[in-house]
Amino acid sequence: MLVIKVGGGKELDIDAIVNDIVALREEGRELVLVHGGAETTNEVAEALGHPPQFVTSESGFESRRTDRRTLEIFEMVYCGQLNKMWVEKLQLAGVNAVGLSGLDGRIFEGRRKERLRVRVNGRRIVLRDDWTGTVERVNVELLRMLLGAGYLPVLTAPGASDKGEAINVDGDRAAAMVAAALGAQALVILSDVPGLLRNFPDESTLIREIPRARADEFMQFAAGRMKKKVMGAAEAVSAGVQRVIFADGRIGGPIRAALDGNGTQIV
Amino acid sequence: MLVIKVGGGKELDIDAIVNDIVALREEGRELVLVHGGAETTNEVAEALGHPPQFVTSESGFESRRTDRRTLEIFEMVYCGQLNKMWVEKLQLAGVNAVGLSGLDGRIFEGRRKERLRVRVNGRRIVLRDDWTGTVERVNVELLRMLLGAGYLPVLTAPGASDKGEAINVDGDRAAAMVAAALGAQALVILSDVPGLLRNFPDESTLIREIPRARADEFMQFAAGRMKKKVMGAAEAVSAGVQRVIFADGRIGGPIRAALDGNGTQIV
Repeated sequence: MLVIKVGGGKELDIDAIVNDIVALREEGRELVLVHGGAETTNEVAEALGHPPQFVTSESGFESRRTDRRTLEIFEMVYCGQLNKMWVEKLQLAGVNAVGLSGLDGRIFEGRRKERLRVRVNGRRIVLRDDWTGTVERVNVELLRMLLGAGYLPVLTAPGASDKGEAINVDGDRAAAMVAAALGAQALVILSDVPGLLRNFPDESTLIREIPRARADEFMQFAAGRMKKKVMGAAEAVSAGVQRVIFADGRIGGPIRAALDGNGTQIV
Repeated sequence: MLVIKVGGGKELDIDAIVNDIVALREEGRELVLVHGGAETTNEVAEALGHPPQFVTSESGFESRRTDRRTLEIFEMVYCGQLNKMWVEKLQLAGVNAVGLSGLDGRIFEGRRKERLRVRVNGRRIVLRDDWTGTVERVNVELLRMLLGAGYLPVLTAPGASDKGEAINVDGDRAAAMVAAALGAQALVILSDVPGLLRNFPDESTLIREIPRARADEFMQFAAGRMKKKVMGAAEAVSAGVQRVIFADGRIGGPIRAALDGNGTQIV
């Protein structure tokens, strides 16, 4: 069992990722794909006249300001445009993919932050009309049922709050929860950098290996969105996932390269 | 087993539809929901600078011109914005809904019209870059698996071509195929009119009953998009669905009212 997380960057080689998935499935590997879509969401939000805003939590994590209209645009891009793009590409390649959000069947269930304490331009404010949350449980029964019937689940945010509200959840941490819940052997996180960089964006400073017990320490090297990726990785390894790999999604054979030891290996 | 099709009109009382679904499920009815989204797709296509176009087939049916960009916008609205809106409302009401397009697991599978012969302003042309098709098969195993596990499938276009391409398929005819494939007792088609009208849009000319053997004859009263609804209904009854009802989706208790004999009953 392998969980693949792909970011939403424009430089990703989507066809190369699809080809690797086809080949791995032919070898009998069970797979779940989780994808993002932040960059496209920013573009569509601009085009629809509701430009993206970002806020920083008191603990230093950046997240998308998700009011009701943003949530709607988020769903249009993640669940509509991009989820169906992945499903169509996989179907064309002969893989019977089933695209679902974390809201469907409450696959990603968690807590909505009903009061979000954030800093905006250094000023502390409390947001009450924000639909952001954290995944706490994965509906592993639904995923196992689909996998057992031969489908490839293609998952994306949003998730569901306990009440059933749609909540914007971080895709990397959701993928880590899925990998842990399914007892995956490996979680491969593909993005538009070669892995975790000691001096971002200098790609020659790639960190090749992180001992699992020390994953937390490496948070200091994680810039911007990479912070949640490292946090998710630390959560995945502490929940029993054997390997987490940050790898380059821009190259040919990206999943295979990651499994062969490229990128940043957390083992 | 009951299949409910809801249009995409702005006047539909969505909360009333959700309430009826909750109540019917509590009574032990198995349900599948199929929804549309044409009106919102038109608005979003305008907002994104790719205004909708419609073409008329040689047999007189109007359909959306679906080039690649339109297909993407279509998926944003149907699979993103509206599918997740329905799933969220159902989840908030305690129903474990799972939203899927017909592309996912090839739930709606059919034939892409690779050459679409149409009339545009009276002129005959052949379109080759159009992604429109017709549902020929329903993946009933996936639907039964979800229903058996207690989920409510919430389905929408697009469907999948034999090759796995996304294709714009008519939601009413897809719902009719689902009802037939599941051996549903009834298919309830809710829209923003009280049923089939002898003189559209005069609501006092509601046709109360159509004998199933004569459904085809009633095509003459069907204006615009209603044509495909009547065609779908005729297909559903000829495939063994006991009752097809065109009913008003703008009123309280709309599904119950339809089952109680309101609207146009094809029996």
